[in-house]
Amino acid sequence: MFIKKQRLLTPGPTPLYPPALHAMMASDMHHRTEDFRKVYRACLADLKEVMGTANDVLMFAASGTGAMDASVSNLFSKGDKVIVCVAGKFGERWRDIVKAYGLDATVLTVPYGQAVPVAQVEAALAAEPATKGVFVQASETSTGAAHDVRAMGLAVAKTDAIFVVDAITGLGTMPLDIDGWGLDVVIGGSQKAFMIPPGLAFMSISPKAWKLGETGNLPHYYFNLKKEKKSGDAGESSWTPATSLILALGEALKYVKSIGMAELIQNAEMLARATRLAAERLGLELFSASSPGSSVTAITAPAGMDSSVIVKEFRSRFGSIIANGQGEMKGKIFRIAHLGYFDFSDLFAMLASLEIILNANGYPVPLGTGVAAAQEVYMQAAKK
Amino acid sequence: MFIKKQRLLTPGPTPLYPPALHAMMASDMHHRTEDFRKVYRACLADLKEVMGTANDVLMFAASGTGAMDASVSNLFSKGDKVIVCVAGKFGERWRDIVKAYGLDATVLTVPYGQAVPVAQVEAALAAEPATKGVFVQASETSTGAAHDVRAMGLAVAKTDAIFVVDAITGLGTMPLDIDGWGLDVVIGGSQKAFMIPPGLAFMSISPKAWKLGETGNLPHYYFNLKKEKKSGDAGESSWTPATSLILALGEALKYVKSIGMAELIQNAEMLARATRLAAERLGLELFSASSPGSSVTAITAPAGMDSSVIVKEFRSRFGSIIANGQGEMKGKIFRIAHLGYFDFSDLFAMLASLEIILNANGYPVPLGTGVAAAQEVYMQAAKK
Repeated sequence: MFIKKQRLLTPGPTPLYPPALHAMMASDMHHRTEDFRKVYRACLADLKEVMGTANDVLMFAASGTGAMDASVSNLFSKGDKVIVCVAGKFGERWRDIVKAYGLDATVLTVPYGQAVPVAQVEAALAAEPATKGVFVQASETSTGAAHDVRAMGLAVAKTDAIFVVDAITGLGTMPLDIDGWGLDVVIGGSQKAFMIPPGLAFMSISPKAWKLGETGNLPHYYFNLKKEKKSGDAGESSWTPATSLILALGEALKYVKSIGMAELIQNAEMLARATRLAAERLGLELFSASSPGSSVTAITAPAGMDSSVIVKEFRSRFGSIIANGQGEMKGKIFRIAHLGYFDFSDLFAMLASLEIILNANGYPVPLGTGVAAAQEVYMQAAKK
Repeated sequence: MFIKKQRLLTPGPTPLYPPALHAMMASDMHHRTEDFRKVYRACLADLKEVMGTANDVLMFAASGTGAMDASVSNLFSKGDKVIVCVAGKFGERWRDIVKAYGLDATVLTVPYGQAVPVAQVEAALAAEPATKGVFVQASETSTGAAHDVRAMGLAVAKTDAIFVVDAITGLGTMPLDIDGWGLDVVIGGSQKAFMIPPGLAFMSISPKAWKLGETGNLPHYYFNLKKEKKSGDAGESSWTPATSLILALGEALKYVKSIGMAELIQNAEMLARATRLAAERLGLELFSASSPGSSVTAITAPAGMDSSVIVKEFRSRFGSIIANGQGEMKGKIFRIAHLGYFDFSDLFAMLASLEIILNANGYPVPLGTGVAAAQEVYMQAAKK
């Protein structure tokens, strides 16, 4: 038996930034003190900076789904007409949330692996001028597809609807001009590009969204955006904050700022490009070939091979945890992540491992081929 | 700028085992309590088990050099005739220690990159029947060469001399039958195959060595083997122990036992074999080609290339810290380590990085070639 380092290489939780983990050791701190308020204020300011928005930014002790829930329960009213883009498991989650709160949804569904076309959103908006909101995933983590949130945002901005973007895996992996593109609500989570453990959700809210919220009539208590905004202005959270995670976030945001958000995005884009070229050279098919995002690349398992075998052997042979398909895609695709504390060395090792696993399971590939593709992309990118 | 994870990939300190680091957080513990004695006793018992010896095993709050010093100051007498094998920087350290204590040393020196032949030790023993000790490195970390400690041990066992083996990088990377081969004193350190930070040294002592120590007349205080043995039997250390490191060691030893010492050694041997084949395929020369060890592989930089460039670019391009040559070898060789918490994924990434660095510095190699060599070795080994 060889040493097999446990490597967390999934699209969330993502590989963790060690100094952020170390910072959690300082959580013997009370949250209603000036010491903690300093940390909390810095996190909110740094989040605003790296998200690159003038909108308000709030933080919750919750997973990303909590912020998704909050955006519906705080801003909308029962029976509101909304448009929901469904391109995978997380689009289905938007659909389920708006249904739970009794909104009247037009659901635009495309097959897994594709993205909802902008024209379809435009048509739906034109068909229903009373539409109050459009919901989408910037990056649909379950399939690796990305939506054209720029074009969608500009289209929604022309209407009275607000544009609600789940950017949980989009933030830090794709350019998102929140203010320029009219992304009224943008949701993020700690366990993604922010490279810390799960437990914190983020949300930016535009003036247009706040305005809609004024007439919202849905019940809510824990997730109270107005209250949270007021608390945040005072350097506090409304309820007990997840102090250890906030200490970790503070450290991770320092790192993200030191790299620069544009470079963090480029890191994901280069890793994604390298992965796509490696897949091509290995004769593998990309699952979301028409609209591939940079948070994660979904690859179809070779004919006759269950992708669960690939996932299992990554673990059993190399100690690495990679993502299978979710739901109906389980066994059909596997996913290589590009976000969090994830670098080219991780990718080189993953591709070398993948080649071995493919060879060992009846899909012969020349050893080193995928790695060489990734090396080429690195060398091209490093020249610039 | 890409994300570049800081990766500690040197032959000591070696890559660290995370659960061992986490265990250090429990050091709010007093060392003169039964709680701590339990941990200390378990460490001594587990060390004895993984070293595979019936000899006494002691532990010191010191680096490995401290235990080397202790073996001389506790067991020998001024003017004692000894033989010192010098095949690199650590052999020179033995030479300096015995000189510092006034022993009368016959120094057997070979050029860096070679190992002292057993015949030379046998001849020196035959030439001086009053020899009290023979000093050697199992693995000479500065050059990557390994000594034939089995043959040397069997030769020394026929005489009245004791055989003192610096196995600081040898333990866990090469078979060492301490009792069967007559390795009277074997020295280890925490920051090597034990995959925790520096600060602890280990030593096994045979009855023959204890006997020699009875007549030893050299001054010593902190390093007192007899006192330490008595303390250890009571589950304590003579002086204040490095509690955090001992907690880490306890966790690391559990892991080493779960893998098995033979498999840990095989891990290093396979990584070393893969590295040698990769070097060959890349047209690179091994520095210690005649007697390569498995703790670290020293590779000669291509003609006209300073190995410091390779080391620097590993850091600047990929965040990885690898070892340059030491002393006179600096700039001429670089060293790829195989010990500590080090696995094939690390090696795949290192070789992919090395290929890029070679290409970028005027030594073109086909991308993926070295990686493919390592993949082949993995696949051969995994079949068994």
